Amino acid sequence: MIKQLQQQVEEQVAALNWSMEPQGLYQPIEYVLSLGGKRIRPVLTLLACELFGGDKSQAMPAALAVEVFHNFTLLHDDVMDRADTRRGMPTVHKKWNDNTAILSGDAMLIKAYQLLQQAPLDKQPALFGLFSQTAVEVCEGQQYDVDFENDLTVCIPQYLEMIRLKTAVLLAAALKMGAIIGGASEQDAQALYNYGINLGLAFQLRDDYLDSFGDAAVFGKKIGGDICCNKKTFLMLTALQKANKEQRDQLEKWMDCNNESCFEQKVASVLAIYKDLQVDVRCEEAIQQYFEKSVGSLENIQLPDNKKDILVNFANKLMGRNK
Amino acid sequence: MIKQLQQQVEEQVAALNWSMEPQGLYQPIEYVLSLGGKRIRPVLTLLACELFGGDKSQAMPAALAVEVFHNFTLLHDDVMDRADTRRGMPTVHKKWNDNTAILSGDAMLIKAYQLLQQAPLDKQPALFGLFSQTAVEVCEGQQYDVDFENDLTVCIPQYLEMIRLKTAVLLAAALKMGAIIGGASEQDAQALYNYGINLGLAFQLRDDYLDSFGDAAVFGKKIGGDICCNKKTFLMLTALQKANKEQRDQLEKWMDCNNESCFEQKVASVLAIYKDLQVDVRCEEAIQQYFEKSVGSLENIQLPDNKKDILVNFANKLMGRNK
Repeated sequence: MIKQLQQQVEEQVAALNWSMEPQGLYQPIEYVLSLGGKRIRPVLTLLACELFGGDKSQAMPAALAVEVFHNFTLLHDDVMDRADTRRGMPTVHKKWNDNTAILSGDAMLIKAYQLLQQAPLDKQPALFGLFSQTAVEVCEGQQYDVDFENDLTVCIPQYLEMIRLKTAVLLAAALKMGAIIGGASEQDAQALYNYGINLGLAFQLRDDYLDSFGDAAVFGKKIGGDICCNKKTFLMLTALQKANKEQRDQLEKWMDCNNESCFEQKVASVLAIYKDLQVDVRCEEAIQQYFEKSVGSLENIQLPDNKKDILVNFANKLMGRNK
Repeated sequence: MIKQLQQQVEEQVAALNWSMEPQGLYQPIEYVLSLGGKRIRPVLTLLACELFGGDKSQAMPAALAVEVFHNFTLLHDDVMDRADTRRGMPTVHKKWNDNTAILSGDAMLIKAYQLLQQAPLDKQPALFGLFSQTAVEVCEGQQYDVDFENDLTVCIPQYLEMIRLKTAVLLAAALKMGAIIGGASEQDAQALYNYGINLGLAFQLRDDYLDSFGDAAVFGKKIGGDICCNKKTFLMLTALQKANKEQRDQLEKWMDCNNESCFEQKVASVLAIYKDLQVDVRCEEAIQQYFEKSVGSLENIQLPDNKKDILVNFANKLMGRNK
């Protein structure tokens, strides 16, 4: 079922028409949208709409709005992070230039609102309100992420709030938008939102975990990327909190070392400290905790169990579990 | 009357609350909005609403949306143009950095939509549609402006289309949004839009004219800025069109000269060619033509003459005429 929705989203994304002038504005948009990805967010919008008995074709414009918005954030984030590649291909600011990434990104944000205006008219006030609120929160999350780079006093709750804003709220909003279009009660829509928030947190923490402890072949990225660039992830913040004086000195020494030739040693040394401090275990616990909270949010929703099971299965699949 | 509206806009812009976390996101927004400016666009929204008998307080959120959107474009354009100052003060990317200008700009675009959602509910579909369409067009205009820098084949109609998109459509949309909220008929709202388009074109051409032929003290900028940076304005494009072989060679020679020490000579020489070719006269004619077209658009509007006079007076004032 998820696969089928994914395919429908893919078709509709491909059907968006960007063959317009000026090409310098629209070709980069077509490019970034053609790079694929799992289309998780729009799939969730369609799925939520269907679960509540709505017609998924009515949710498609909102689903596309979420996907176009998500890709807008990638364009601008990649400029800010100076990222060279995205899904194995050059980023827009690399293939074109910074100005193109900025301006085409702006056009995508506006296009997302235009798509949302194709949603059922009576649902638009709720959808616009939720969408704008979420969009602002994603900007706030990105700002916290930037701020944290130079902040030595970040604590774990602050980090969790940052990833809630940067990652979880869009997943949650995608679900809630589908629920709204599907005719869910406000209470059910909010419970689904909470499922999304906690699933988003679990998902991001798992991403942190895999960046340090994953299998490079499965993860698709080199292991230790976060360690190399001194990212203050859940793992690093937990390590700094649990470390004794000597371990803390070691971690800080490695964070001061940005010499590429030392990266292999840096990753190995930091990972050894993570293991000593059982940071991996603590992270797995946190993931499990948010995962359970996510699935637990479904309890209060007025839906038959077989429909809830679809969401439980989705959560398991997203977390790479074969349940 | 205009002065009074201006003051009300100023108060409401100042009343927008940006004292939120993360400050790194919101302080630049407060900064750019505090730099002032004439608030022409929001004033036009309020004015148009009042002319059609609407309550201007109902038009204030839309007016603020237009002003916040306009300032968003300034933030991003200044990054793209590497502009150091704006209204005599450092630009956001200079005072902070590029990433701040990008991200705070994004948040402003979203905030504009949030403000628009405070407009009367029954008018929102029309307002959102017009606003998004206009916003996309402004992006297209900026893209054409960037494209034209490296395009030697730009012709005058292309230039006029660029300034229509980059400048005129927002002025026109500001008016039409006010008219919609004020309860104008679609026909009247569209006629007012046309008034705005032609006034916007006249205004931008006048800006081009003053950059070459203005009084530096009155214009507020150094004369010849466009000539120095080889901007393909209406003046330059007209000159290139009218030039004989020798004059064209001269113009192209000066466009190849980007040595700052030659700028004084460059401006004087290009201005001499402009004068020889009566480019100034041709530009004044074009300004007058668009001005008349603008005022002429008012004829078909169902409004008493004393109300139309307010718009005629506004147009004269905007064009620096003392009529």
